[in-house]
Amino acid sequence: MTEREPAASDFRVGSELVVRAIPGVPTVESGDDLSEIVVAAFDHAGIDLRDGDVIVLASKVVSRAEGCFVDLAKVAPDGRARALAEEVDKDPRLIELILRESLGISRKTKGALIVRHRLGFVSANAGIDASNAAPGNAPPDSGPWVLTLPQDPDASAAALRDTLGAQYSANIAVVITDSWGRPFRRGTVGFALGVAGLPAVWDRRGASDRHGRVLESTESAVADSIAAAADLVAGQADESRPLTLVRGLQFPRSLESSKALLRNPEDDLYA
Amino acid sequence: MTEREPAASDFRVGSELVVRAIPGVPTVESGDDLSEIVVAAFDHAGIDLRDGDVIVLASKVVSRAEGCFVDLAKVAPDGRARALAEEVDKDPRLIELILRESLGISRKTKGALIVRHRLGFVSANAGIDASNAAPGNAPPDSGPWVLTLPQDPDASAAALRDTLGAQYSANIAVVITDSWGRPFRRGTVGFALGVAGLPAVWDRRGASDRHGRVLESTESAVADSIAAAADLVAGQADESRPLTLVRGLQFPRSLESSKALLRNPEDDLYA
Repeated sequence: MTEREPAASDFRVGSELVVRAIPGVPTVESGDDLSEIVVAAFDHAGIDLRDGDVIVLASKVVSRAEGCFVDLAKVAPDGRARALAEEVDKDPRLIELILRESLGISRKTKGALIVRHRLGFVSANAGIDASNAAPGNAPPDSGPWVLTLPQDPDASAAALRDTLGAQYSANIAVVITDSWGRPFRRGTVGFALGVAGLPAVWDRRGASDRHGRVLESTESAVADSIAAAADLVAGQADESRPLTLVRGLQFPRSLESSKALLRNPEDDLYA
Repeated sequence: MTEREPAASDFRVGSELVVRAIPGVPTVESGDDLSEIVVAAFDHAGIDLRDGDVIVLASKVVSRAEGCFVDLAKVAPDGRARALAEEVDKDPRLIELILRESLGISRKTKGALIVRHRLGFVSANAGIDASNAAPGNAPPDSGPWVLTLPQDPDASAAALRDTLGAQYSANIAVVITDSWGRPFRRGTVGFALGVAGLPAVWDRRGASDRHGRVLESTESAVADSIAAAADLVAGQADESRPLTLVRGLQFPRSLESSKALLRNPEDDLYA
């Protein structure tokens, strides 16, 4: 299958989007087949996927399916992790794990280490999740358990997109999301961690407005906006709503991944 | 009317949101009554507003209605503006205006001055818009025209919410939005610039997850997520879609404004 890079004119936005949380996703365990779980949930909801549907999945269930559980009792912090842990007042074993997951430290403060994750984005504590993070088969005397982000969320999104797209014979997209804080603003919003099947960034630079004036800055972070919209219905504490359908976009096939959303550190005024 | 501060349990998110661009908004001019324009657009679309509806309006139409047009030909840059303009390679008159709209400079780079706006948030070029920015009655030899952000978007949102809420006898909310870039990530997303009638930040700190563990960081930037969702259907270049309806949230009356979304500079690791 040859896929082409999309042209700006290929990406149309309908006048109405429906953002629907799909119930029926069980607590996912290591080794579970996510595409089977997603298909079962859509079947149960009586939904047939069709062209233009975007399947949004919280990274947590992807991490669980991929077995990204870590028993902190088995993590041995080194000297640097111990010193940092004291500085930011966190568990040195967690700090060790955050450092292993990261390319470097961006900022530090009481309670949080802001890092550039090995996947390239910047977030607090490398996105490591400590709530509901134990595997179902955890021995009673084990833990505390935490959950790291998926190894390669773009690849996970692409695999899911290929399987679901074939199953429904539809041009769908998959966005794997997490929600983090941001510089300058309070509160978390959803971000696209893995993207497959749609342009993550909609580049309209060079298009002209209605007066023929060339638009200056019109790269729209479509996949992040989709993640933010899904976050409104998905909730974060409730594991039963990690699956969201966003229906109403029209997009071309695209090979663009979530990497398109990352600023190069050398272009980043806040790096 | 006494309004109370919402409790976390008051804010419920339905399982389905509809995000609909409402057509029929004309090019708005200085002095136009926005509530009349919005009501006419909803009437034309056959939509009756009801409890829980969120009316999302692009800041540009609010600025136009409020007459926030500036003829750059009449702006006299001072020495500081001239020096900065040379440094970042922009029109010194625009730099002068950006500085007048700002509390201070956050970062500077070729083509952009990132400032803390007088309203408290951080954005490029103080959110001043140079596309489609001329008033309809601009003399032919005037300009170039630009459009500043509304004087007080929270007040504008509250006024609109009061008028529309009374007209439809419904507990609605209004979010005035703009879209900007962000540190670390490419592409623009929608942000809430003015908020009335819903909690801008949904504070779930202290709530417990399904295992009884207290959640650590669960302040959700609901109004920003709504802005991001609306941005997906509103487009930015096309002035005919500045009005979006988000239907499906359930929220308590709230006196919280967009200020709830702003980190204090002293708490901000990137300030």
